[in-house]
Amino acid sequence: MQLGQVQQAAVACFARQGYTATGIRELGAAVGLNSATLYHYVGGKQELLLGIIRDCLSAMLDGARNAISRTQDPARQLAALVAFHVSFTAVNPLTAQVATGEMRALSDPAPMQALRDEYEALFAAALADGERAGIFTAPDPGLARLAIMEMGTGVGRWYRADGRLPLPEVQLHFIAMAMRILGAPETPLSPHELPTAQRVASEGER
Amino acid sequence: MQLGQVQQAAVACFARQGYTATGIRELGAAVGLNSATLYHYVGGKQELLLGIIRDCLSAMLDGARNAISRTQDPARQLAALVAFHVSFTAVNPLTAQVATGEMRALSDPAPMQALRDEYEALFAAALADGERAGIFTAPDPGLARLAIMEMGTGVGRWYRADGRLPLPEVQLHFIAMAMRILGAPETPLSPHELPTAQRVASEGER
Repeated sequence: MQLGQVQQAAVACFARQGYTATGIRELGAAVGLNSATLYHYVGGKQELLLGIIRDCLSAMLDGARNAISRTQDPARQLAALVAFHVSFTAVNPLTAQVATGEMRALSDPAPMQALRDEYEALFAAALADGERAGIFTAPDPGLARLAIMEMGTGVGRWYRADGRLPLPEVQLHFIAMAMRILGAPETPLSPHELPTAQRVASEGER
Repeated sequence: MQLGQVQQAAVACFARQGYTATGIRELGAAVGLNSATLYHYVGGKQELLLGIIRDCLSAMLDGARNAISRTQDPARQLAALVAFHVSFTAVNPLTAQVATGEMRALSDPAPMQALRDEYEALFAAALADGERAGIFTAPDPGLARLAIMEMGTGVGRWYRADGRLPLPEVQLHFIAMAMRILGAPETPLSPHELPTAQRVASEGER
């Protein structure tokens, strides 16, 4: 029995029926443990949710920072961020959904909201750098950032590994659409430059 | 006591804690009725959810059809659809969230999914018309439709009536971003042409 298995069961339940409707007994049953043993392993439901959201946001932050570390060019940084965001959401749709949708179920959401803000600030910084350099010409950079992030988040709702397009092609299309929104020239990354997100511990097999 | 009040209480609960976690007794308490009386008014929780989703999708379909009825030009049709979608989501964020997120909680989601498909088909048709006419040049129209719809759906997560930008300006910015994604010239609608969505019965005051 590993923590990852409990997190997977929890994410599946939270994504399907919500945090509030999921009982600690139900989670125990899903991984073959009684409530007392489960409590010993992970603490209560609240600690479990906090761990899932923290692991998710940490992986997003690490991945995004790594993605932009390879270049100083704002357009290539933004392209890498978009590609990473799409990849993370495609590979971890349930965890990403829970991390967003159940944030308010945390008794103290502020520290997790701060991580989320840090992640969004990476996009805002690349965007501001590109605006300053005259590469990006979005009439409203704030709205452009929201639109670009939300369209990437949406990938989790429709992407299937066996779907029409392989993930690298989806990433390239989303980079192209983001650059169009920003009024920037095409900035494709070559296949080996495309960031790839790993499946986090809380995401089950699909 | 009106059906609208029960729907409002239900949408607030479903949006906050999920359909599964919400009891019919809790809904009754929220509107000052006992379970038996509530059952008499609206049937069970399932009927209530179905009514909410049906009313939401019907309003979306009617509004979108009305928005495109004023022109045959694909770019202006797409602009009107984007503006309507943004407006509906901004004015009805909780209902839209429940209609999307709790669709699978329906015992028979197929008829509601069909309404949703009809709504999406309006966007796909305007997009295909524009591609055929050479106005739109999206490398992948299917992905472009998904991106444009998801970035509009995301408006419900951040728009506030007392926020930085009034809704008509948000609509115009989203039209502009959609046209950029599609490689089309700017297609602003004048203020009196911007579709405005009404608050549906299930959406509470904010």
